Amino acid sequence: MDGAELTGKNVLITGASGFTGRHAVAYFKSVGAKVAAVVRRAGVHSFGEGVAVHVCDLNDKQQVRQLINEVQPDYALHLAGKNSVPDSWSDPLLVLETNVMAVLYLLDALRSCPSARTVIVGSRLKYTVEPGRKPEPPHPYSLSKALEEIVSLSWMSLFGQQIMLAEPGNLIGAGPSTGICSLLARHVVACEQEGKREAFRLSGRDNTRDFLDVRDAVRAYATLLVHGTTGTVYPVVSGTERSLGEIADTLLSMSEAEVPVRWDGASSGPDGAGKEEELSLLRKLGWQPQIPFAQSLQDILSDVRRKQGGGTQ
Amino acid sequence: MDGAELTGKNVLITGASGFTGRHAVAYFKSVGAKVAAVVRRAGVHSFGEGVAVHVCDLNDKQQVRQLINEVQPDYALHLAGKNSVPDSWSDPLLVLETNVMAVLYLLDALRSCPSARTVIVGSRLKYTVEPGRKPEPPHPYSLSKALEEIVSLSWMSLFGQQIMLAEPGNLIGAGPSTGICSLLARHVVACEQEGKREAFRLSGRDNTRDFLDVRDAVRAYATLLVHGTTGTVYPVVSGTERSLGEIADTLLSMSEAEVPVRWDGASSGPDGAGKEEELSLLRKLGWQPQIPFAQSLQDILSDVRRKQGGGTQ
Repeated sequence: MDGAELTGKNVLITGASGFTGRHAVAYFKSVGAKVAAVVRRAGVHSFGEGVAVHVCDLNDKQQVRQLINEVQPDYALHLAGKNSVPDSWSDPLLVLETNVMAVLYLLDALRSCPSARTVIVGSRLKYTVEPGRKPEPPHPYSLSKALEEIVSLSWMSLFGQQIMLAEPGNLIGAGPSTGICSLLARHVVACEQEGKREAFRLSGRDNTRDFLDVRDAVRAYATLLVHGTTGTVYPVVSGTERSLGEIADTLLSMSEAEVPVRWDGASSGPDGAGKEEELSLLRKLGWQPQIPFAQSLQDILSDVRRKQGGGTQ
Repeated sequence: MDGAELTGKNVLITGASGFTGRHAVAYFKSVGAKVAAVVRRAGVHSFGEGVAVHVCDLNDKQQVRQLINEVQPDYALHLAGKNSVPDSWSDPLLVLETNVMAVLYLLDALRSCPSARTVIVGSRLKYTVEPGRKPEPPHPYSLSKALEEIVSLSWMSLFGQQIMLAEPGNLIGAGPSTGICSLLARHVVACEQEGKREAFRLSGRDNTRDFLDVRDAVRAYATLLVHGTTGTVYPVVSGTERSLGEIADTLLSMSEAEVPVRWDGASSGPDGAGKEEELSLLRKLGWQPQIPFAQSLQDILSDVRRKQGGGTQ
């Protein structure tokens, strides 16, 4: 997919000011879509020209209805949500309200646009509910993502809506990410610019994760919006497991600075990402990752260097 | 259980002005509990002396927190909820808000009373979520009851609360029920008092249902509050299937009036209630139905005769 199908289309993006949201707005704008960027709070949002910014509290169903009425989206990409596991312990109700009810408010409002196609972005950390077994989610966040999937697919079935689910793994890239690659890149740049000497703590060198560039993920979401099969849950992963050792070595090789790192965790092995049959779902639609891993790391590092240029973080 | 364990205890009952709620308030009062009857709207509630009425919108989490703070319940019986399948189609969001989020608000507020024991009253119409299969609930109501169970058991697991689930079948008894027994009783009394001639339409004579007197159900809930095993889902049924034909014959035999009835539906067979292993869960705790079926019907009829005495309904 080259994005031509999206030219001139109304694309609604929630969570537009978040890590993935910013990349999504940039992508859909670049292929000529009319982007409606939904943010929670008014403020300085540098989405550039041609992007309509909508301030909306997605936990308020009246505001959501009005938003959909105004935008009349052809496509809706739902990225907004609470994504912190620790926060889900300190305010579990807010996580459920945001990750379950707000999704319902959005989907219900979209019933007024029967031809709209929607991608709900879930999480591979979701808990799996099994009949006859007491649910024991590890944290409120995993419960919220389980319910998000159930209500999304149920709304599709009950009201005949066109809804696809995306389940990204570890997305990496420039911007406000709290993932391991971004944190380590910030440490590298702090060493470059401030001569920082405190060691960055990492767990076992052999621990592996499936990393995907956030721009590849955004293209996957776009592919699903246009070509996805309604009611399907699509894993959005690279299919390649990389070790923390490889990440550290690559990032450190991109800097002249001396960067102290301490390995003090046990190896926990792979995180189970990227089974072949899962990967094939998106590849059948013509999508595959395009950005080499080293390029992703280089772009993160450049972004941090630019932003930490003045010595501020 | 004779109810002595409940004497002097703080018992919170939500949905107190509903069909089951009124019977629940009467029962807990009769065994000497300090009853906090929770209703949505202020108004004339004839619970009698010794019952504290609390007006609370359970969809407002601040109000719910304040309620629990005030009552400090030893036991909480959650009967409130939206229970109409047709209404769940016309306002699906309200059904999810009420049957899922309001339950969460209640359970979350109850975390401040760690020794409280809670019974959440679900429904046998709940949809069963199965992993690997797209959820296809028949109506939003069944989805809401599925989620109610999942979130209740999850809260139990996440926060170590003492929560039991009750799943009543077809409850019958005096009061504002919209079940088949009450509807037919009202028709019988209309024929007695107004000489009504329009036929009451019923489906097949052989269609069977499991009916349980609401007073027996309330004793089951009380048993669960005191003796139930946390995290267990208890079916609350009589274990006896009765045909619509038997109901009609019994009710009509209790009246001198000529009561026209039309059978015009196909037989759909039993509704699958009351498997032995399900029944045994509550019987092991010492509960069993006590009120004979004919007595239930007689009490419904007497109640309707009294209320329709002035020709009003």
